[in-house]
Amino acid sequence: MSEWNIKASNISKRAHNPIRQIVDKLKVDPNAQKSFISLSVGDPTVFGNFNVHESANEAIKRQLDTFKHNGYPPAHGTLDARDAIARKYSIPDVAPLTPNDVLLANGCSGALDICVNVLCNPGQNILLPRPGFSLYKSLAEIREVEVRFYDLVPENNWQVDLKHLESLIDDKTACILVNNPSNPCGSVYPKEHLEAILDVAAKHHLPIIADEIYCDLVYKGNTFYPMASLTKDVPILAVGGLAKKWLVPGWRIGWILVHDRHDAFAAEVRTGLLNLSQVILGPNSVVQGALDDILHRTPQSFYEETISQLEHNAKLGIDAVSKIDGLTPVTPQGAMYMMVGIDMDKFKDISSDVEFSQKLVAEENVLVLPGQCFDYPNFIRIVITPPAGSLQEAYERMAEFCARHRK
Amino acid sequence: MSEWNIKASNISKRAHNPIRQIVDKLKVDPNAQKSFISLSVGDPTVFGNFNVHESANEAIKRQLDTFKHNGYPPAHGTLDARDAIARKYSIPDVAPLTPNDVLLANGCSGALDICVNVLCNPGQNILLPRPGFSLYKSLAEIREVEVRFYDLVPENNWQVDLKHLESLIDDKTACILVNNPSNPCGSVYPKEHLEAILDVAAKHHLPIIADEIYCDLVYKGNTFYPMASLTKDVPILAVGGLAKKWLVPGWRIGWILVHDRHDAFAAEVRTGLLNLSQVILGPNSVVQGALDDILHRTPQSFYEETISQLEHNAKLGIDAVSKIDGLTPVTPQGAMYMMVGIDMDKFKDISSDVEFSQKLVAEENVLVLPGQCFDYPNFIRIVITPPAGSLQEAYERMAEFCARHRK
Repeated sequence: MSEWNIKASNISKRAHNPIRQIVDKLKVDPNAQKSFISLSVGDPTVFGNFNVHESANEAIKRQLDTFKHNGYPPAHGTLDARDAIARKYSIPDVAPLTPNDVLLANGCSGALDICVNVLCNPGQNILLPRPGFSLYKSLAEIREVEVRFYDLVPENNWQVDLKHLESLIDDKTACILVNNPSNPCGSVYPKEHLEAILDVAAKHHLPIIADEIYCDLVYKGNTFYPMASLTKDVPILAVGGLAKKWLVPGWRIGWILVHDRHDAFAAEVRTGLLNLSQVILGPNSVVQGALDDILHRTPQSFYEETISQLEHNAKLGIDAVSKIDGLTPVTPQGAMYMMVGIDMDKFKDISSDVEFSQKLVAEENVLVLPGQCFDYPNFIRIVITPPAGSLQEAYERMAEFCARHRK
Repeated sequence: MSEWNIKASNISKRAHNPIRQIVDKLKVDPNAQKSFISLSVGDPTVFGNFNVHESANEAIKRQLDTFKHNGYPPAHGTLDARDAIARKYSIPDVAPLTPNDVLLANGCSGALDICVNVLCNPGQNILLPRPGFSLYKSLAEIREVEVRFYDLVPENNWQVDLKHLESLIDDKTACILVNNPSNPCGSVYPKEHLEAILDVAAKHHLPIIADEIYCDLVYKGNTFYPMASLTKDVPILAVGGLAKKWLVPGWRIGWILVHDRHDAFAAEVRTGLLNLSQVILGPNSVVQGALDDILHRTPQSFYEETISQLEHNAKLGIDAVSKIDGLTPVTPQGAMYMMVGIDMDKFKDISSDVEFSQKLVAEENVLVLPGQCFDYPNFIRIVITPPAGSLQEAYERMAEFCARHRK
């Protein structure tokens, strides 16, 4: 019998999902007297209040009816789809794009996978934001690329501690990953700050992976600047996709925008990107066929309505949570998240963010992710996409929960 | 300037597509006097004569209208989709499947990627068929897994040379990959032969990756046997997908069926599969929502019509090519391909399969893949999915071409 014990590869053992490991610890018996409210999943579609615009559905249906988009697309995407993306994101003179500068991927996760894979060798290091989206770490660790976290400063709207960032760089540093607007922070960096990050990259000749999946999802008073629009020197691989802005994460359409400078990517990286995209082939061909309509003919009101709803929910969160003694929300400027600091000294029987989340679900059936999911203890991340009524109810329960556990 | 020369990772350099490298050599000026006929791409949709059944399109449209399938599916697929696949492929008592034995992937290529990745460590070896689908080799070489080819014997309907297979096994062998029905061979193995392969695997306690993407696409007089239905000992990862049988390769829906035996996969491999599927997440959620309808409510006549057309085209190919002096077709029993041997001695100015293909496109504007694309020189692979009229025209041009070049 034991002769048949088949081993799994080392890479499959390294390919863990850090969030899942932490969330498993939260699997306590929830309070079944109360309805379940999840503020944990970064998926805007689960509550029914954020829906794709029906024109996108109609675009897919039209493509289905042609029977012309069922075959293999080129591995890096059809020319029409790449052209639609290039036209959407090209900034003439500053950061121009042609279809040859665009690769499609299986969602933005797939795009990030290819970017990390093309730039990093085992034994090199990658600079990642802390707090940050856990997939970055997973993608590095799978390949035995060393992770070095640079600090984001909550008191400064989660801007990068630039000295800390620079102190991490050595001759084994492969690239810097910048996520703006940020998951989990909800921060949107001003132009000057992005330029300061670019200066560090330029000084050390490091390329940047710019995760801009939340591009344009910014609240009043903030502006989203594509990193590539702010530099003539730093080569950038910018990733994006349909998931958030078009509210269809399940459609798995992501892309890489290759912003080359000084032909830094010409010799090797462009070929490497094409090679890697050929292993699995690209995303669904029918959606690729509809991409021009989705990107260019979704009515402006759809985007405005999304942002207006998010902004309303963000305000609601700030107002409610800032009144809870022991919790300190950091005002989000965009995206779909709010980070909330926990002042552990205020609580008599809670000593960590994981314990906070555990007890909150046990007593109030409200699920939030502990900051440890983003390598940032003593915080929780709240997803602000549920309907306002659910959010209000959740914040009330959190207030009661905190009152009960305060010293 | 040169300070900005960014290197690509080693893995991105290893991630080559062997077919593309060989096809690049075929890029000669084609004879523009003649229309282009491609017999090279294993995509049944490109000519318009093989279309997905409209009930599948309607199933997708219904799912779009619900707005309920736009969110992130679980990384290994929704429960409903996995259940639909399990019900379709479960063989009670012999090779039973539950939804927990099914993982979805980005096409069958994505499924193969995960299977190779979970079973093989760098430095181990994998046994692959020769001739065989080039992706197998790519997936192994990317990970520095040694490729050992076992011979298929054309005179014996491409059955495996079992002695040769067994001679390749050592303590570094991770698994055997079996492709039935076969691309590029068009072979369909009888039960006894599959059992003989399984005996080799059982003797050496090796798991099998069974690439069964062409399952059920078999011609009269042949029967497709899932490998898992023929063994109680050998653990099998069987891969399949919508691409060929449902004629939608661009939809990128593949799956892995975990047929465990002796709990060989229980300790590590099942977890490894889940871990790996979490890196990129699964395929398009809307198609997942429609999968039950597609698998269980596509009318039987659709499958019959596909096979009947393929069988007709296969016969046409055998009849036409066997009349060409210097070419020897191997009669296909299923799938969408026909391998044709070239007797180099018969030709005055053709010395390889690559040269044959090169000159054929230059003179006749007919494109076929040289056997070297499948590690099998002195053969060409003909795709039999074009409309009969195009095939006939292509065979006539090939006959003239051969006559012109014969000694």
